[in-house]
Formats: sequence, C-alpha cells, structure tokens
Amino acid sequence: MSANSFGDKWTFTSFGESHGAAIGGVLDGVPAGLHIDFDMIREELKRRREGVEELRSTGVSARAKHEPDEVEWLSGVLDGVTLGTPIAFIIRNKDARPEDYEWLKHTYRVGHADKVYEQKYGIRDWRGGGRASARETAARVVAGCLAKQQLAQKGITIHAELVQVGNETLTSRYRDVIESVQREGDSIGGIIECRIDGVPVGTGEPIFDKLQAHLAFAIMSINACKGFEYGTGFAGVTEKGSEINHISGGISGGIADGSQIVFRCVFKPTPSTKKALASIVNHPVVNRSDTCIATRAVPVVEAMTALVLANFICEP
Amino acid sequence: MSANSFGDKWTFTSFGESHGAAIGGVLDGVPAGLHIDFDMIREELKRRREGVEELRSTGVSARAKHEPDEVEWLSGVLDGVTLGTPIAFIIRNKDARPEDYEWLKHTYRVGHADKVYEQKYGIRDWRGGGRASARETAARVVAGCLAKQQLAQKGITIHAELVQVGNETLTSRYRDVIESVQREGDSIGGIIECRIDGVPVGTGEPIFDKLQAHLAFAIMSINACKGFEYGTGFAGVTEKGSEINHISGGISGGIADGSQIVFRCVFKPTPSTKKALASIVNHPVVNRSDTCIATRAVPVVEAMTALVLANFICEP
Amino acid sequence: MSANSFGDKWTFTSFGESHGAAIGGVLDGVPAGLHIDFDMIREELKRRREGVEELRSTGVSARAKHEPDEVEWLSGVLDGVTLGTPIAFIIRNKDARPEDYEWLKHTYRVGHADKVYEQKYGIRDWRGGGRASARETAARVVAGCLAKQQLAQKGITIHAELVQVGNETLTSRYRDVIESVQREGDSIGGIIECRIDGVPVGTGEPIFDKLQAHLAFAIMSINACKGFEYGTGFAGVTEKGSEINHISGGISGGIADGSQIVFRCVFKPTPSTKKALASIVNHPVVNRSDTCIATRAVPVVEAMTALVLANFICEP
Amino acid sequence: MSANSFGDKWTFTSFGESHGAAIGGVLDGVPAGLHIDFDMIREELKRRREGVEELRSTGVSARAKHEPDEVEWLSGVLDGVTLGTPIAFIIRNKDARPEDYEWLKHTYRVGHADKVYEQKYGIRDWRGGGRASARETAARVVAGCLAKQQLAQKGITIHAELVQVGNETLTSRYRDVIESVQREGDSIGGIIECRIDGVPVGTGEPIFDKLQAHLAFAIMSINACKGFEYGTGFAGVTEKGSEINHISGGISGGIADGSQIVFRCVFKPTPSTKKALASIVNHPVVNRSDTCIATRAVPVVEAMTALVLANFICEP
Repeated sequence: MSANSFGDKWTFTSFGESHGAAIGGVLDGVPAGLHIDFDMIREELKRRREGVEELRSTGVSARAKHEPDEVEWLSGVLDGVTLGTPIAFIIRNKDARPEDYEWLKHTYRVGHADKVYEQKYGIRDWRGGGRASARETAARVVAGCLAKQQLAQKGITIHAELVQVGNETLTSRYRDVIESVQREGDSIGGIIECRIDGVPVGTGEPIFDKLQAHLAFAIMSINACKGFEYGTGFAGVTEKGSEINHISGGISGGIADGSQIVFRCVFKPTPSTKKALASIVNHPVVNRSDTCIATRAVPVVEAMTALVLANFICEP
Repeated sequence: MSANSFGDKWTFTSFGESHGAAIGGVLDGVPAGLHIDFDMIREELKRRREGVEELRSTGVSARAKHEPDEVEWLSGVLDGVTLGTPIAFIIRNKDARPEDYEWLKHTYRVGHADKVYEQKYGIRDWRGGGRASARETAARVVAGCLAKQQLAQKGITIHAELVQVGNETLTSRYRDVIESVQREGDSIGGIIECRIDGVPVGTGEPIFDKLQAHLAFAIMSINACKGFEYGTGFAGVTEKGSEINHISGGISGGIADGSQIVFRCVFKPTPSTKKALASIVNHPVVNRSDTCIATRAVPVVEAMTALVLANFICEP
Repeated sequence: MSANSFGDKWTFTSFGESHGAAIGGVLDGVPAGLHIDFDMIREELKRRREGVEELRSTGVSARAKHEPDEVEWLSGVLDGVTLGTPIAFIIRNKDARPEDYEWLKHTYRVGHADKVYEQKYGIRDWRGGGRASARETAARVVAGCLAKQQLAQKGITIHAELVQVGNETLTSRYRDVIESVQREGDSIGGIIECRIDGVPVGTGEPIFDKLQAHLAFAIMSINACKGFEYGTGFAGVTEKGSEINHISGGISGGIADGSQIVFRCVFKPTPSTKKALASIVNHPVVNRSDTCIATRAVPVVEAMTALVLANFICEP
Repeated sequence: MSANSFGDKWTFTSFGESHGAAIGGVLDGVPAGLHIDFDMIREELKRRREGVEELRSTGVSARAKHEPDEVEWLSGVLDGVTLGTPIAFIIRNKDARPEDYEWLKHTYRVGHADKVYEQKYGIRDWRGGGRASARETAARVVAGCLAKQQLAQKGITIHAELVQVGNETLTSRYRDVIESVQREGDSIGGIIECRIDGVPVGTGEPIFDKLQAHLAFAIMSINACKGFEYGTGFAGVTEKGSEINHISGGISGGIADGSQIVFRCVFKPTPSTKKALASIVNHPVVNRSDTCIATRAVPVVEAMTALVLANFICEP
C-alpha cells in the first residue's frame, strides 16, 4: 500500500509539504450518513497548533499562536453529511515564508530528516522540512476527528494526556519546567498516556494484526515518537508473573478484552533548539520550533488511535 | 490483508494450532536463486526451542528440551534453491498430547487469551492455547531465517540479545536470577536489545511506512511483548534536546540514516506459573511453561526484524 | 485497500463528485526527479473531454466542447519536478449547474447507477451522477499521464484507438455512423484496441497478479466498459490449438513475453439518450450526454493501462 | 500483496508446483463456525479433474481419470468446523513422474510459459509446468468450495456451464466436436457462462473495486482464459442505447443491482496438442493434455467467482 496511506478500511491518504500550496488528505471508507461536527475539528486543530489547553502559550513557537488552520472540504460531504464516497480536504499553507528557510537550502539540520531525504530522493523540498515537517499531522488530526465522531456513536472514547515532562510527573509543574528549558534555549521530551474505553471485546486480529501491534505502528509513525508500551510496559520487567498477570492493558492475545486499554508513548525533545541553531555559524535564523513538542502531540496521538480503531470497528 | 500474513513484498502467511496436525507457513516474494542454508534454520529453531545458548537448560520447560522441530518443505524449492514461487513448509506437531490440556476445555487461564478467543470466535481450540500459543513463532523463525540469509548477501546483519532479566542487567547473573524465580514456581520478564548493521541509507518510507513503525508493528505482534523503543527511547524523556539529538537510533524521519539501528523490547513474565496454576483447584496439571520466556524470544525478535527489512529491501 | 485507490506501488487515489467543489487525486509512489510535461496532460484532458481528434465535435455533448479542465497541483512537485512525495492535484468543477439536475433528485435514470447508489449508501449526490459520473475519469487521465511519462523513459509506449463503432470497423466511416445515431437521439457502442510496446520480458506475477488479470481489472473499472479480451480473445474459440497457439497477445503464463501486448475492450452505448429521457414525462431536461462514449474513453484506456504498467515496472 | 494470494478479507494463498511434494493453500478470514461439507469438495475436485459430468471421459487426458485428489487439512478446522484461524490444506502430488518430463529440461513448449518463467526467474521447475501448470487450480477449487458453502448460507448460488465449444453452441453436440478434434490430435476452445443469484443489492465498491472489475480480475487469472464480458458484453457494440440499456448484467455502476449477474469467459485451446508435440523432433513424449480444457475450467470459474463474492460479502 501507499506509504502515505494508513488503514485498509478507513483509508487515510495524506499529502502536502509544509511550505507548498496546501497539505491535506483523502479519507476513504467512511460510512455514508455521518453528520460531521466541524466545531470539534476546529478545536482539535487548535489543540494541535497551540498545545494542550492548560499549557497553551507555553513552550509553543510564536508562529503557532496565530493563523488558525482552515479546512476546505472538496468531496464526499453534502450539507455536512458524508456520502460514503472519498472525503478530500485541504488546508492551505498561508504562512508559507520560504525566505525564512533559504539558509536551509544547503544546510542539513542535526536531528532532522533533511539529509536522509536528500540521500533518499536526490531532491528535497528544503522549505521548512517539506514533507518531513510535523505540519502533516494537521491532516491526521482532521481525519482522526471523523474517526472519533464515528467511534463516539458506538460508545468508544479516547483520551490522551501528558503524564511526564522531563522528569516531572506532576501536572501542575509542567509549565515551570517548560519555561525554564525555554529560557535556556533548549528543548525537553515528554510522555503521553492514552486511555480508550468502550472497545468491543474481540477487536483485534491474531496473529499479526494484533490490536497492540497496530496501535504501535500508528503511534510510532508520528514524528519524534521514540517508544510505545501498553499494559505493564517496560516497568513490568522487574515484576514476577504471579504479581502482574492480571494487568492486561485491555488487550489479551492481540484482542481487546473489554477492559480499559492503556498505552504510553514518548516524544523526544525538538531538535531545532536555539542552542543547536546557534552552532550553525553566520546565519540570522528564526527559530520556529517548540520547547516541548509533546504538548502538541496529544491530539495527534488521539487521532492516530481513532484511525486504528475505526479500521478495526467501523465497517462501511 | 490477511491477519495471518505479514509484509507486502516478502509476504509470510502463518498457520497452525499448537496441537493440531501441523503449524507452518507460506513465504511469497522470495527471489529465485537463493541457496537455503538448512543447518542455520535447524540451529535457529533450536535456539527458539531451548532458549539462548548461554542459558540453555535454564528456565525452559522440560518438554522444550526434547523433540526438535523438523521442517518439511512442500514447494518453492528445488534442490535447495528457491524457485521464485511461494515457499510452503510445515512442522508436524509430534508432541500433541491433548489429554494434558483436557482440563482447559472449560477453564480460562489468567493472563492467557483463552477467554477472548472464545468470546471472539464462539469456538476455541482449547488444546494448549491453539493458535494463541507461542508455538506459532517457530514458523516465524523459519521464514525469518530465509530473510536473514537473503539480507546477509546484501551485507545486512541482525543481532539480538537479552540485556535485562528482572532487574538484573549483568549477563553473567541471569542464570541465578532465573533459577531462583523457578524455585519459587514463578516467572520473570526480560528486555531484548536488537542491533542491525548495514541497512542501506534511504530504507523506510515516510510518512506512515516509517522504518521504526514497521519494526514496532512486527515486534509488538510477538506474544508477551509489551513495549518497543528505539534510539533514546523512554529514557530520553529526561534529557535536553541539546544533549541527545545526535542519537538517532539509526533512523531519521522514518528513514535509515546509515548508522547502526538499535531498538529494545520488553517481554512480560509467562502467565502460566506453577503458582497461578495452583490457584485453580483440584487439577493435577502439568506445567509446560517457561520461567523467562524472553530467553526464547531472542531468535523470534531477529526473525521479525529480518522480515521487516526483507520487505523494504529485497525486491524479487 | 481503499476502493477509490488503484495500485500498490504507484498508488492513485481518486476523489470528487461531478458537481461538488472539485474532483482530483493523489498519486503516491512516483519516483523523485520526474520532469512533468504539463502540455501533454492538457492535451490528454482535451482528448478525454472532446473525444479522439479525428472525431472531435462529433457525438460529443455541447458542454464538453467548452470549459477546459484546469489542473491545480497541490503537493509533491517543486518547479515542475516530482519530489518523491505524494502528488495531489485538483480540477475545480466550474460548470457545476446543479439546477440542471434538480429533476434527478427524485428520479432514477435507466442504465445509470442512481438507484443502486441510493440503495447502497442511503444517501446520494443527485447532482449529475455524483461519484458515478464519468467525470472522475479526468483524474485518471492526469494520473495516467504521469505514468506514461515515466514509462516513456523506459521505452514503453501505449497506443489505444477506436476499432469499431456499432458494426462499422472502417475508421473513415465512424463519423457518419455517429452522426446518424445522433440524429435519432440515440447512442451507440464502440470497441477500443490497445497496443503496448516495450514492456520488459518478465513483467507480471503468477498466479493471481498475472499481467492480463491486472489489465482486465483496470479496464473493467471504467464506466460503461462491458468486456475485455487479449490475444486471440473471444474469436479464438472457433480456432484449433494447432492454428493459434503462436498468438500470445504478448503475455504468456501471466508474464510479458517481449512481443507487443494487444487487448480490446467494449463500451456500451450511453444510457442517457434523448429517447430515454423523453420517456420520463413532464421534464424539460437538458441532455448533456454523448452519442458514442467510446470516442472519449480512448485516453482513459491508455491512462489505466499506464497505471497498471507503472505499478509493475516503475519502482520508486 | 503477495502475487499468490487472492482477496483481502477471505485471503486465499496458493502454493505448489505440479510435480513437487504437494500443492495447497491457506484460506484466512473464514468465519468461525462453518461446518465444512467435505463430500462437496471431493465432488468439485472430481469435476475439475475429469471435466463436467455430461462430457466426462471425453477430451480429458487418461491421467486425469485416475488418482483422485485427496485433501489433507492441517489447521483451522476442529471436528469439521472452522475455528476462525487460517485453514491450511495440502494435496500431495502422487503421480509425480518427473521422468516423463525429462525432455522438457532443455525445451520450451510453444504456447506454454516455460520460456518466460526461465527468463523471469533464471531458474525453472521444468517438471510438467511447475507452478504454471493448471494443477494449481485444484487448490482454487478447494478454497472456492468453502466460499460457496458460506455463500449458500446467505442464499447466494453460483452456476457456471459450458455454452460454446469451437463454434458449436448446442450442448448435445459438444461430445461429437471434442471427439472429432481429439482424433485429429488437436485441441479446441470453449466459452463458459456463469450466473449468480442472490447477491445482495449494494455489493461492489466504486470506483476501482467495482464488482465486474474484481470478477474480471479473478477469472482472467485462470490459465488459458483470454477474455471476460458481462451483461451485453462484446455483442452489445452493435446495439443502440435505446435498445439495450435495461440489460445491466446484474451490476450497475460497479454495484450489484439485485438482478441475476451474468458473465462469460473464453478459454483458448490447450497448446500441448499431439500435433504440436510431434513438431518437436526426436522425443518419445507422453501427451497428458486435454482436448478441450474449458470442460475442466467450469468448477474453477465457479470457485473464483465464489472467492470474489466471499471477499465482498462474508465478513468474519
């Protein structure tokens, strides 16, 4: 299947470079008759753009605070209701300022994919990361919203939240940690936990299409994600079988067992820190990067989770 | 695609219940002209059956020590050379003693998939786990061996090893830890690290078919695996961007960058401990389970890694 | 895979209703570095819109003669060169006049898919056929042009032409036949023959991915196509084995054998004839349909053929 | 997907060379709880082996009349009932007499795939056609039987029959035609018509996964098939739109419309005629080929049709 498509039933195809004409997607397999909640989509795009609500305006680049993403719907929807045909949508790249990135034409940033893209394709859209930019996650969020709306009708809810920033696990102290790192011109990682309720017993297909395998595949495809675990996860290694085997994480043998599904994933610190950029001499660069990208990844984690579940559950 | 098939180029289809006539697989997409090293396959199956060499005879059930798995090749191979056609192979289940499992007909074991299989399918092969048994990993090992042999011709090597048992990270002390747990009638988890050398720069496809996403998908499909991480992994959350962004784990933007690829995965303790079984009253059960299943998962991790890479690299 | 996607390597995803905002497509898997010939695309779209050159202005609806289709490129292309990332393009539906189709809201046209769409989805875009309109073939032509351009670089050429209109097989007399049928307010079928040169020996994969099977799948997905044959085709039934078995049609055992590949396909007469519409009483309808749709299907047949071959041959 | 796999829901993977150890298949996606009718499978295999009942013993090679195909079930079935896990089965090649084919080691037969296989793979199983032999259709018949049995429970029936042999369309005269051709040491083609009843309205997915496109793909993958048509087919080219547009062939816009589905396909004469073999000098060859292969293709056409429908209709 296409490397830019996800899922074989609710198939989401993503396209667009960060500074080209537009990014967007096509979602095929959405059942006819779904009334789309456009407000929810706007809110989720804001959450992706500005970070989780409680940390908004903290650790997020100045750019992100302005210019809301506006979705234009091209097909598959009539009077706000899905037709059962492919749903195409685009988000124009309004703030495409290639001149800010002119210096990148001949420079590879450390921790970025600039170099491997050049090596792989022999050509590269150097304008701000091109296809490798996290901007493509906006299209994931739109597609994920439709999946969430469909899942909600079946009583399935997905809730992700930031559970660790650096080595801080107290929510009330995240802001301090991020602002401190920001002052240093540095960046910091984070861990997101996701809880899913209402997944029907039996969801997931042995032996390769196990539910946890598809969740891992989806989550590990998000930029900057370095790890995935569910249930007892890595911490479980120090426990005895007699102590932990009642903890399934909601999945047994690859199949949902009816209990809450819980997984965690880790996001590394943004590579484009001011410190890092300062090391590339003689360039008056604008740093548009975030201090803690994990704060913006939360709705993306939910979106990918929703797409996984829609593929298992939401037959057209 | 079929839930029991893996990969779209080197497509491996697995079949078989643990106590049915046979388990086996079909491997389609293997280029013609590969001379199969059957000795290596026998050795890898032994490694899966009896555990990693240095811990052999420790923590592995008595059953596993006997009865080597014999592979019968049904198609796709002529005089030891692949024909380019589908390669089918089977391993007969010689030691199928359903009577040992009679008590399972009406009992669901904690930490096992017995119950969800019954719920999902309405019918269940109760003989020792049926399809959910780890026995199916023998077929993965056979398929993975062919992938490894093909990859070796391209200079790609895969090496996995046990890096943690319980909270012990010193290799020389694993044996003690396992034997101690075994005496308690309990089980313990383990972490496996896998290092891959020689992967061509450019391997991996953004944005969904990222190399790490496919590795995670493959590894998380192995029974008892609860987590996957690469590069800085979960530990990286406490580091600053300025400190760790030179550590790529061999993959950047989803694409191999030419450096060694490193990932880790965690295996939970086996659920069928003597302690657990003892809690199911009035049953004179034979416990065939292992104390530290991670010791036997090492070649399976290598096999799945090889299948992922063959799918990306080994065009027919 | 998505029902609106075609191909697993050069994956073309199509979207759009005939009278919605736009139709378009996403083409994923196109190698980086292809210099797109935009003029050729414009010419092929004209050929689809106005019919094959020698019959232009004959048997084609008045509407089709005006309003060229303008392609807007959204992603995957920088300065006319492909980036290796998904190529998204749209064609706005300028002539969207839903009012012409108001009468269709509660009427199912004979020979059209109106009714089955309503039955399948419970909702229908009644504006001129919606997704079932032949308008979607414009997106196929754009995608097919890129495939043709890539194939041309490998010395592969595809040439389709009309070889029969009604029972007339003399090219010079097609115009008369079509004009005569048009005067009757009726429509007529046609047969298209396609010849492919330069396909590398070995193209095609036994046993299910045979080259002829994929060509049939592609061609039979075009609206109004009712049959596909290659080599000796249906006529061969009356021949003896000793007489015809040197005629392979370019494919042997599902694999290209190096000789010219020849196939034929038949297009039924357009269902929306003036006669047919007249039978739906009391409706002052505008008939936008063609007398011989086969005259416009020629570039679509070439486009689908090119996509099939690109999927087999043009690895990224 | 694997070139030897068919279907994405009921996925059938085929393997085996005609003179290797065994041919067989794996069928994944079959719902749990289907009671398999093994007698029906035996009868269908006989029909494939000996030809349609009314022509049995005519035009079929001597070999085919003996040695029934015996199916060994390896997995996925317990006490005759499907488990929901992959169903693997094999048929041993009892009559593997490679010595009869020794002369083929260095000879390519006209009209056969011998040469292209050698060119494609660089290696070839020369023993009687290897993978290109029609023997692989026995595995299709077994898989198709399970599909038919499942479809029957939903009220769907599939019936194919021979409607033309050479230029003879009278059933009662087929035997004479075939015997006459057989006496000449030659072979003859045939046309099979297939009628499907009970397909639910709405089956089929626009725009690429149209029902007729999948039927064409399935049927054109059968050895010796040179053409596919449905509804008015090729004959419709000479009709006017006003005359034929009520004939849908059971499919409209790619979607089943509730009426009987009718398609036809043509099989060329067997290439290995005695005449053809005689032209290869100095070889005392045994001709095991059939005079009219179409007589044996009937159950294969039904089997492939059943697999197509099961993929659209029979969700696990």
